[in-house]
Amino acid sequence: MSEQPLWTLRLDPSEVEELAARADPEGPLAGVRFAIKDNIDLAGHPTTAACPALAGKPAGSSATAVRLLLEAGAVPVGKTNLDQFATGLVGTRSPYGACHSVASPAHVCGGSSSGSAVAVASGAVPLALATDTAGSGRVPAAFNGLVGVKPTRGLVSNAGVMPAVADLDCVTTLTRTVAAARPAIAALTWADPDDPRSRPTPPRPPAAVAARMRVIAVPDAGPELDPPHQEAWRAALDRLRGVAAHVVPVDVGPFLDAGRLLYEGPWLAARYAAVGRYLEPDGPHLDPTVRGIVLRGRDIAGPAVFAGFERLAALRRQTEAVWADVDALMLPTTPGHPRLADVAADPVGVNARVGTFTTFANPLDLCAVAVPAGERADGLPFGVQFVAPAFADAPLLDLAAAWCGEPVPAPPAAPGTTLLAVAGAHLSGLPLNRELVSAGGRLAFRARTAPGYRLFRLNLPGVPRPALVRTGDGPAEGIAVEVWRVPHQAVGALLDTVPAPLGLGQLGLDDGTSVAGFLAAEHGVRDATDVTAAGGWRAALAARR
Amino acid sequence: MSEQPLWTLRLDPSEVEELAARADPEGPLAGVRFAIKDNIDLAGHPTTAACPALAGKPAGSSATAVRLLLEAGAVPVGKTNLDQFATGLVGTRSPYGACHSVASPAHVCGGSSSGSAVAVASGAVPLALATDTAGSGRVPAAFNGLVGVKPTRGLVSNAGVMPAVADLDCVTTLTRTVAAARPAIAALTWADPDDPRSRPTPPRPPAAVAARMRVIAVPDAGPELDPPHQEAWRAALDRLRGVAAHVVPVDVGPFLDAGRLLYEGPWLAARYAAVGRYLEPDGPHLDPTVRGIVLRGRDIAGPAVFAGFERLAALRRQTEAVWADVDALMLPTTPGHPRLADVAADPVGVNARVGTFTTFANPLDLCAVAVPAGERADGLPFGVQFVAPAFADAPLLDLAAAWCGEPVPAPPAAPGTTLLAVAGAHLSGLPLNRELVSAGGRLAFRARTAPGYRLFRLNLPGVPRPALVRTGDGPAEGIAVEVWRVPHQAVGALLDTVPAPLGLGQLGLDDGTSVAGFLAAEHGVRDATDVTAAGGWRAALAARR
Repeated sequence: MSEQPLWTLRLDPSEVEELAARADPEGPLAGVRFAIKDNIDLAGHPTTAACPALAGKPAGSSATAVRLLLEAGAVPVGKTNLDQFATGLVGTRSPYGACHSVASPAHVCGGSSSGSAVAVASGAVPLALATDTAGSGRVPAAFNGLVGVKPTRGLVSNAGVMPAVADLDCVTTLTRTVAAARPAIAALTWADPDDPRSRPTPPRPPAAVAARMRVIAVPDAGPELDPPHQEAWRAALDRLRGVAAHVVPVDVGPFLDAGRLLYEGPWLAARYAAVGRYLEPDGPHLDPTVRGIVLRGRDIAGPAVFAGFERLAALRRQTEAVWADVDALMLPTTPGHPRLADVAADPVGVNARVGTFTTFANPLDLCAVAVPAGERADGLPFGVQFVAPAFADAPLLDLAAAWCGEPVPAPPAAPGTTLLAVAGAHLSGLPLNRELVSAGGRLAFRARTAPGYRLFRLNLPGVPRPALVRTGDGPAEGIAVEVWRVPHQAVGALLDTVPAPLGLGQLGLDDGTSVAGFLAAEHGVRDATDVTAAGGWRAALAARR
Repeated sequence: MSEQPLWTLRLDPSEVEELAARADPEGPLAGVRFAIKDNIDLAGHPTTAACPALAGKPAGSSATAVRLLLEAGAVPVGKTNLDQFATGLVGTRSPYGACHSVASPAHVCGGSSSGSAVAVASGAVPLALATDTAGSGRVPAAFNGLVGVKPTRGLVSNAGVMPAVADLDCVTTLTRTVAAARPAIAALTWADPDDPRSRPTPPRPPAAVAARMRVIAVPDAGPELDPPHQEAWRAALDRLRGVAAHVVPVDVGPFLDAGRLLYEGPWLAARYAAVGRYLEPDGPHLDPTVRGIVLRGRDIAGPAVFAGFERLAALRRQTEAVWADVDALMLPTTPGHPRLADVAADPVGVNARVGTFTTFANPLDLCAVAVPAGERADGLPFGVQFVAPAFADAPLLDLAAAWCGEPVPAPPAAPGTTLLAVAGAHLSGLPLNRELVSAGGRLAFRARTAPGYRLFRLNLPGVPRPALVRTGDGPAEGIAVEVWRVPHQAVGALLDTVPAPLGLGQLGLDDGTSVAGFLAAEHGVRDATDVTAAGGWRAALAARR
C-alpha cells in the first residue's frame, strides 16, 4: 500500500522523548502516543487546518484538549492531515494530499479527520484527536474500521480548536476499541472557563437517560444504501438483536431533514464567519472545492439564518418525541463508501451524500459513537453509529462496548436503593416523574413486562393514571415500563401517594427477572378502560389526544 | 386625564358574558378578567400587532397562553395596543395612538406592551398578557407601578404569538401584585408540543438555584441614571437591605454588553425574518420608526449573525460566574423615564437607552420580575427588577413578593430531611456537589457563617478541600456557605466519605440559627493554609488560579 499523506507535521523524536519524560507516569494515559488533527493547537507548532499559508505561525499554547491529554500522561507525536478547514467528509480536500481508506487505495479515507483515522488504523498511534461538526470524526472511523466517539457538545473544550461552525463543533477521539477511548474521553471531559460553549456534565443525567441502554431504535423504512452497504446493514440489524433487548422501528425522516439543513442551509455563513478571511487571495494553498463551498456562505442573508433556526427548532421538537421511549438510535454511519474517483467526478454531491446519517447529530444536540460493524462483501470495513440525547454519553459508551463484544464495566454499588418499575404517570416526562427524581431516583433501564399483563386507564380524579394488572392473557410482547433505582425510604413515601386500586408488588420483566412495581388487582379495574393495545401508557396517552 | 388608546379591540359585552359563562367556576382564575396584547391570538378576532393592515383576518384559534388562562377560568375582555410588531420599549410607535404613563400625560407609558400595562394600571382589568423580548413586559410595568413577570424562556408557550425575535420572545404577565401573578404564571407554565422552543420545567431546579433567595447582587459602580431616578434607586438599595441577607456588588458590564448586542447587533435580522413581509408597500398603517429599524435587519449578512453569536457566547460565559455566589441581581428596570416629547425628538436613541437594563435577560437565558419601588421625587413610579438564572422562577417570585411586602408562601414540609451547611468541595458546581444532588439534596439557601469562623485549605490528596474551624477570631462578616436540604440517610453516607480532620457539627449562621455542617477542630488544621481572607472557598480557589 502506498505511503499516505497522513501527517502535516511529525514531531522530532527528541521532542517526543522530551514530552514523554515530562508526562505523568501515573496518569491514566501514561505513555500513550497520540496524533492531533491539525485544526487543534499544539504549543510551539503551527496549526494549518490543511492550509499551508498558515504553516508559518506556531501556536502559543496548546488547546485545552491537548493539555488535558498531556496531563493524563499521553504523548503527542504529530499533527494530522484533514479536509481543509475541516470542511469535508471525504479526506481528499487537502493541499497536503488525499488519504485513502487503510483497506483500499481506491476508496476514500473519509474526513475531515482523515490523517487522524489513518494514523490509528495503520497502527502508528493507538489514539488520535479529531473533530466532528457534521460527521468528521465518525465518517473516517467507519471507513477505517475504528471507534469514533463524538461526545455531547460542550463536554470537551473547543478552546484552541479552529472553528468550523462554532456552535456545533465537537472534539472527538479515534481509537481501535471502546476501551481505548474511555480513559481519553474521561480525561477530556472538563468544563473549561476558556471555552464559552463549554458545558459541565450535569450532577445527574437528564431524567429520560437510562443508566443501561436496552431499547434501540432503527429506521422504519430504508435507509437508502449502496448495494454492498445494504447487505452489511442487514447483518448489523441481526447483530443488534443480540445486543438490544428491544429493537424499535422509528421514522428517521425529521433527523435526516435536520442534517440536510446544516449542509444546505444557512450554517454555511458560520463557516464563512470562521475562516472567510483565509480565502483571499486565491492560490494553490486553498482547496478549490472548500473555497467554493465556504464562499457561498458569504452571501447568505441574516434573515435566512434565522429562518433556518426556525426550521431547525421545529425539527428538533419533532425528533424529541423519539427519545421518550428509546435509549439510542442505530444507523449506518454512511450510506456508502465512495472511491476517490467518485469524489473527483462530483466533489460536492458525493461528499454531501456521505454525511446523510451523521450531519444531524450536532444540530439536534445528540451524542454519538461510530463503531465497526464487520466488513462488506468486498472486504471494505462497514460501520454503524449509535446516537442518543445530550448527556447520555456514559451509557452510550457502554452500549458501544457491548456491540463490540468488549467488557462493560459493572455499575457502582448503590446501597440503600431498590429497583422499582413504573408504567404510568411516573414515567420520565410525565407529571409524577418529579417525585422519583426529587427523591434521588434515577432511570436504571427501559423494559417491557413479561407476557401476561394488561394495561387499564383508571377513572380517578386528577392526573390520568393507568393500572397494570397481571391477567395472564396479556400480549406476548408485554407492556412498556421504566425501571427506576430509588432510595428505600422513597418507596415508602411513594406508596403513601398511590391511590387504590394501585399497590406495590412483584412485576415480571422481559428478561425473566422480577422487580417491585405498581400493580392493581383485577377486581380493581372493572370500571377502567383497557388500553393494552397501545403497548404502553405513553402511547395510550398519545392515542387519546 | 385624557382617554388613552389602550385597546385595539374591545370584545362585545355579550361575547365577554358568553366566555364568562363557559369559564370553569372552580378554576384558579375563575372570573378574572384579562387583557391580551394584540400580538397574541384570540380565536375569532384579528391579531394586528398594531398594524391596521392585519385587522382583516380573524385568528382561527387562540394562542396556547390564552387557552390556558381560559381553562383556568379567566375571561378575556379585549386586545391591547403595542409598539408595532412589538418593536419598541416606549409605547408610542403605533398607528392606534401613543399611550402615556398612568401617572403623567407627558411621560411615556413604556412598551411594547403599552395597552396591557395601562389596562391593568388604570384598573380596567387585574391581569394582562404581555410579551417581552428586550424588556417589553418589564418597562411598561416600571412606568406604571406594576409587577411584570418574565418567566424563563420556553416555560410559557409562544404558539399563537406573532414572533419578534423567535429565539428570545417570552409571554409575560402584568398585574398589580405578585399574588395576582402567581396563579396566572402557574396556569401558563406548560410544555407545549405546538411550540418548538417550549421547555418543560425540569423535575428539579438546577443545582445552583436556591429554594430561598437571600444573597442579592447589585451593580458595583453606577448605574448611570437620570437624576430623579438616582434618588429613587438609592432608596431602593436601602430597602433591599431589609429584604436580602447579603447585598453583593458585582460588575454588571458583561450583562449590559450582552443587552447592547441584541439591540445593535445581528438580531435585527431575526425581526426582519419574522415581520419583513409586512413592510412593503409602505403606508400610514406602518409606524415609520419601526419600519426603519426592521428594514435595517434585511441587510445584515449571515456571517455577521454568527459573529454575533460568538460574542454573545463569550459574554454569557463571563456572566455565569456571577450566579455561583448570588441568588439574584437587582437593577433599576430603566435608567430614566422619558417624556413623549423626548421620544419624538430622538425616537431610536431614547428607546435604546430605556432598554439598558432589560435587554440582556433573554439573550443570557435569565428570568426576571419587574416590581414597583416607590415613587421618584416628581411623583412618577419607579421600578426595579430582580433577575436570576433560568428555572429560578419560583424562588424569584418569592423574592419579589418579599420585596413588595406581600406574604411569601411557606415551603412544603420535607419530612425525613435535614439542613446541612457545606463550605467546600460540596458547593454547587464543585466536584463533590454531585454527591448531594444524587442523594436527592437541594440547595435550600446561600448564607454566611456567624462571626468567629476561619477557613483553611487542607493538604490532602485528591480534590482540594477546605476546613471550616470555629476559632472565635474569624471575620465579622463570616464565611460563605451553602445550606442544602438532604435526606437523613444521605447525611450518614456523606459522613463516610469525609476524611479527617473534617467532621459534622453544629454551625452558626448569619441569622443566628444553627445547622449541621462540616467542621474541623483547630488542632486538625495546624499544617493547613489559612484562606479566610478570601471570604469563601470558591473565592479562595479563584484566587489560586
